[in-house]
Amino acid sequence: MGVDTIVGRHKERGRYDNGAVYGVLDEALICHVAFILDGFPYNMPMIQVRIGSDLFIHASIKSRFYEILSGGIEACVTATLLDGIVLAKSAYNSSMNYRSALVFGRMAPVTDEAQKRLVAERLTEKIARGRWADCRQPSDDELKATGILRIPIETFSVKIREGPPADNPSDLDLPYWSGVVPVSISKGEPITAPSEKEKIAVPEYL
Amino acid sequence: MGVDTIVGRHKERGRYDNGAVYGVLDEALICHVAFILDGFPYNMPMIQVRIGSDLFIHASIKSRFYEILSGGIEACVTATLLDGIVLAKSAYNSSMNYRSALVFGRMAPVTDEAQKRLVAERLTEKIARGRWADCRQPSDDELKATGILRIPIETFSVKIREGPPADNPSDLDLPYWSGVVPVSISKGEPITAPSEKEKIAVPEYL
Repeated sequence: MGVDTIVGRHKERGRYDNGAVYGVLDEALICHVAFILDGFPYNMPMIQVRIGSDLFIHASIKSRFYEILSGGIEACVTATLLDGIVLAKSAYNSSMNYRSALVFGRMAPVTDEAQKRLVAERLTEKIARGRWADCRQPSDDELKATGILRIPIETFSVKIREGPPADNPSDLDLPYWSGVVPVSISKGEPITAPSEKEKIAVPEYL
Repeated sequence: MGVDTIVGRHKERGRYDNGAVYGVLDEALICHVAFILDGFPYNMPMIQVRIGSDLFIHASIKSRFYEILSGGIEACVTATLLDGIVLAKSAYNSSMNYRSALVFGRMAPVTDEAQKRLVAERLTEKIARGRWADCRQPSDDELKATGILRIPIETFSVKIREGPPADNPSDLDLPYWSGVVPVSISKGEPITAPSEKEKIAVPEYL
């Protein structure tokens, strides 16, 4: 990971089809949004949701983030999934298996109430499928207080490294194990909030 | 997540002690490096390792990334750990538990061979503790081909959201479960490389 960024040494890691970029953006629970403020780069973790060929980020309408990004400045949204630790026989050829999607462009605020509500629904469903029908949905005031930013998925790049280590042929006889240790995100047992007055059962969808 | 970025609504989420930033940088396997090129923001996933009060990133010395960043331009390195999905009774108050460290500054190339070797060792050990003594360590040529960039951890910010959902008091009687679904990174069963000529046992440290 890293060695092939921007202009890849490993050309096969750059993929440019929509399916690949959509897949990474959909599976990743968070992304990092880079932008420029007063000539300095900033890089913020955010939750994203894709609807069709658009990517949506949400933030409080009063936040500095929303104020800055809603002005339509350039951003680079990167979502990365770590899939494995790649241990070659040499430290030098060791690497990571990963899928990373980069989306470049300007964000624009979403003002249409119906679209804002749809984004809130899709975000909620992305985080926990089945939750939208089993929670208090946003009031009009809450929806007003929620800033939604849209960036079209038009200019993008996908970097993927997968498969076993690429050992030097001259290293293959070395007495060190080589292979991949898979890495993934896992969910634990739900922890009920202490504020729950009555014991409501953990929903099936969790 | 997101609502408290840059200038927090939730002041308690901004923490500024070294221990917190070191903890996040050490635990996170990857970070995202934001920088500016030709007036546009870029945001690249990289592996980082901390040694003392410095953070190190590595890339091929021939990569565009190394060429750009070694010039000493401003960067923002962000590492984020996702700890949980926070489901409040309302969609609006739902959130994520996370820890995110942002380091701001200029990167400088590391040219000292002994320090480059130390970074290679620490990177290897970070990815798989015990591996450095059980792999082929870098040759002088490989070390020359490895670009190492250093950024001092001097200007930074840490954002943390932890604990149960913050439900509206007026929502507490609603018949929806509220709580936290913990999220963590987990490692799977090691997969031996097909190129292994002899079956070397998976090492204990994996």
